[in-house]
Amino acid sequence: MGSQSIYTKENLLDSNEFRKQAHMMIDFIADYYENIEKYPVLSQVQPGYLQNLLPKSAPYYPEPIESILKDVQEHIVPGLTHWQSPNFFAYFPANGSIASFLSEMLMTGFNVAGLNWVSSPAATELESIVTDWLGQMLVLPKSFLFSGGGGGVIHGSSCEAILCTLLAARDQVLSTIGSDSIGKLVVYCSDQTHSAFRKASKIAGIHSRNFRVIKSTRSTSFALSPHLLRSTICSDIEDGLIPLYLCATVGTTSTTAVDPLGPLCDVTKDYGIWAHIDAAYAGSICICPEFRHFIDGVEAANSFSFNPHKLLVTMLDCCCLWVKDPNALINSLSTNPEYLRNKATDSKQVVDYKDWQISLSRRFRAMKLWIVLRSYGVEKLRNVLRSNVELAKLFEGLVGTDKRFEIVVPRKFSLVCFRISPSAISKCKTNIDEINKTLLESINASGRLYMTHTVVDGVFMLRCAIGATLTQEAHVLAAWNVIKKHADVILNMHV
Amino acid sequence: MGSQSIYTKENLLDSNEFRKQAHMMIDFIADYYENIEKYPVLSQVQPGYLQNLLPKSAPYYPEPIESILKDVQEHIVPGLTHWQSPNFFAYFPANGSIASFLSEMLMTGFNVAGLNWVSSPAATELESIVTDWLGQMLVLPKSFLFSGGGGGVIHGSSCEAILCTLLAARDQVLSTIGSDSIGKLVVYCSDQTHSAFRKASKIAGIHSRNFRVIKSTRSTSFALSPHLLRSTICSDIEDGLIPLYLCATVGTTSTTAVDPLGPLCDVTKDYGIWAHIDAAYAGSICICPEFRHFIDGVEAANSFSFNPHKLLVTMLDCCCLWVKDPNALINSLSTNPEYLRNKATDSKQVVDYKDWQISLSRRFRAMKLWIVLRSYGVEKLRNVLRSNVELAKLFEGLVGTDKRFEIVVPRKFSLVCFRISPSAISKCKTNIDEINKTLLESINASGRLYMTHTVVDGVFMLRCAIGATLTQEAHVLAAWNVIKKHADVILNMHV
Repeated sequence: MGSQSIYTKENLLDSNEFRKQAHMMIDFIADYYENIEKYPVLSQVQPGYLQNLLPKSAPYYPEPIESILKDVQEHIVPGLTHWQSPNFFAYFPANGSIASFLSEMLMTGFNVAGLNWVSSPAATELESIVTDWLGQMLVLPKSFLFSGGGGGVIHGSSCEAILCTLLAARDQVLSTIGSDSIGKLVVYCSDQTHSAFRKASKIAGIHSRNFRVIKSTRSTSFALSPHLLRSTICSDIEDGLIPLYLCATVGTTSTTAVDPLGPLCDVTKDYGIWAHIDAAYAGSICICPEFRHFIDGVEAANSFSFNPHKLLVTMLDCCCLWVKDPNALINSLSTNPEYLRNKATDSKQVVDYKDWQISLSRRFRAMKLWIVLRSYGVEKLRNVLRSNVELAKLFEGLVGTDKRFEIVVPRKFSLVCFRISPSAISKCKTNIDEINKTLLESINASGRLYMTHTVVDGVFMLRCAIGATLTQEAHVLAAWNVIKKHADVILNMHV
Repeated sequence: MGSQSIYTKENLLDSNEFRKQAHMMIDFIADYYENIEKYPVLSQVQPGYLQNLLPKSAPYYPEPIESILKDVQEHIVPGLTHWQSPNFFAYFPANGSIASFLSEMLMTGFNVAGLNWVSSPAATELESIVTDWLGQMLVLPKSFLFSGGGGGVIHGSSCEAILCTLLAARDQVLSTIGSDSIGKLVVYCSDQTHSAFRKASKIAGIHSRNFRVIKSTRSTSFALSPHLLRSTICSDIEDGLIPLYLCATVGTTSTTAVDPLGPLCDVTKDYGIWAHIDAAYAGSICICPEFRHFIDGVEAANSFSFNPHKLLVTMLDCCCLWVKDPNALINSLSTNPEYLRNKATDSKQVVDYKDWQISLSRRFRAMKLWIVLRSYGVEKLRNVLRSNVELAKLFEGLVGTDKRFEIVVPRKFSLVCFRISPSAISKCKTNIDEINKTLLESINASGRLYMTHTVVDGVFMLRCAIGATLTQEAHVLAAWNVIKKHADVILNMHV
């Protein structure tokens, strides 16, 4: 057939070739997990390392997968910081699992863009069902579930969840006072709230002079004070401003501080302010009944979000957001261009998740949560979370046995904040923060483990965040030994 | 050991179990591709179908992967609209490939959160390298590449790319005129611009009265008129407003109209307006030299974005954005909390992509583009895109052979906009739009193929978007036969 040359496309999804190459990739990744402890946890490459290892432009002709995997092993793996390593204790964990990996494969294989219901009904309906499941596991009030008039959605990140709820709150208020009053809107948080909130506020056009950061103190474990919130709000109202939105946190990034949700929501209710609860990290742990009390008071909030992609063995990206009033989100974020109109949407019987988020197209992320929850079940997931907390307790106990160290902020979940104590260098002129910085850099440069730091109340401290899937007791014990050895060297130099 | 019960975590990334289950999943997905033509392309389920098929809550105990896959097959697959089907002609395609699937596996397996350079140097550096590669393939001016002082970033969607560049433009202007003047900022687009731009403008706090929609006409193939743009801008300036941002499009969603970039950028340059080029759909095709002229004029724009996840055989999600002035993005979107500070960032020698986007955490999306470009090479990718265009020409030709039909807007790329012609029902009282709506619904209800519609200049038309990876000549021919048969029935009823 003469036309074949122009019409015939090479089949880039040929199922035989797919099987062959994909099985090869599975073995590559399984080998990676088996060897992961051999790599330095924190990548030791220098800025710009990759540029000289790769060609300056894309190849004109195809390259075999074998060559590509060889380059991945030789050039990419050394530039990875290994978040799946059992010796990864930095930031907060991104703990993966087989079930989550399998569901990413399925999601990618189907590759449906579930922008609205009709574009793939299963993607939408499974998301509604699974966020209801997870809401029940957290004992969220029914008003946050679809079965109770609210509803959940899966975003890519907490940044997105905070931004979208802020937009919902903003547009609800602006619809009565007029958009020209945007400069009067005030938002509230503590000095421990994640930087995502400042960014979201800026994006939403909240004036920087109206971004209220309420100081927290060590005496209340860095929790946001309801009294200070109320007095700040009153002062703003006196100044003719309009209080809009509070971002409260369960498990802050620096030290996993917990804001008192009930008393804070009493305040926001009095002034008609939208209360959002950001439990990005700690939300997962609250599926254990003994930790549920940390989100007591969520009943009175307007929205709540957390990231299964941190501790709930769900690979990136997966942030669940629940709202009591989906219409507030939809009124702010909906679009209805002709090319997306369809009968299901017009019937108003379906959820169109494009109107619950920033982007139009969306991956079938519900698949991940559904398969993780089913593969492991509630009991096993709770036990994994409990083990992480127990391992953190173990580490905390080890720190406590060495008088050169101190726990800076009492542990609540599976993060331990500690440092070399000022008393250990009492005769030395070097600043204690500098000593601890040196310790952290020295440990991380060893490649044996990776931790990060924070500064709270003027104190530099090391953060040991436990929760990587592969982390077991032996890794925690080994980590402590590495820390002690590096401390020995540094303290010998300085004392 | 007595402590084992509390410290020992079940290994949810055990490599043997990983191999076993993941190989099983590969075969499930390969089988899905082999059987994909057996399913109705557009899911035929009714709203709420899934709720009654699944339990009301998450299971307490684990379930085996075999049961889960059985449920996927029985309950999820019927609720999918099959975007990978060769008979999918709706919206724009999301065309997958083996290389893209493999790279998603690798990305998920590593599961690094590449928020900043240090959190995984390879993720950042590969993204900079591969966006430079792709920029070269598009013959973007060097000023858009890292090698020329600009740079590229991979976002999840065009919505995000448009929003982020709008924020960069907004904050650049507000930094000189003051945030209280936000109500004076004006943004510009045509009546064919994607709804994402209106949404982005609303999110960014641009007042709705300052959202200028310039009417396009059939006589200029629905392209935005530079003359009208200039006169609208002048009128706004006379009114004391401040022109901010133009969103021009190469390949509009309704009909793939192309705005004249050169003349439009002449206007934006005169008034210091940020010009963003949204080539979400057509950008991929412009890697073919014979189509490159459609983005002529991009040289003068401030930013340019397109979605490899539409036509460039890259699975969701992947939108490339290039900017000439990365600092404009960074000044608007950067955060620098203590817990993310690190030496590499302080050295200012590295890119921290968290400051180029909305969210903090990010997947290693660069892996996808890198492996797709290497696996297929530039020549093969061009040929796939050309075949799609040739198949669209074929379809256009078939429509042209049947006098009952007409091409409503001349084809430019691989989308064909057509309808039953008013002349075919001249004696009938039924509205021609209603006839075409009935035709589309009838075709989609058959499950044989799936197309969507648009309305432009008051005319309802069917959109046949060619480009699904598995679509070959036979599918296009078969689709045309299905369309004709349904038209026979409908016209027989009405004429």
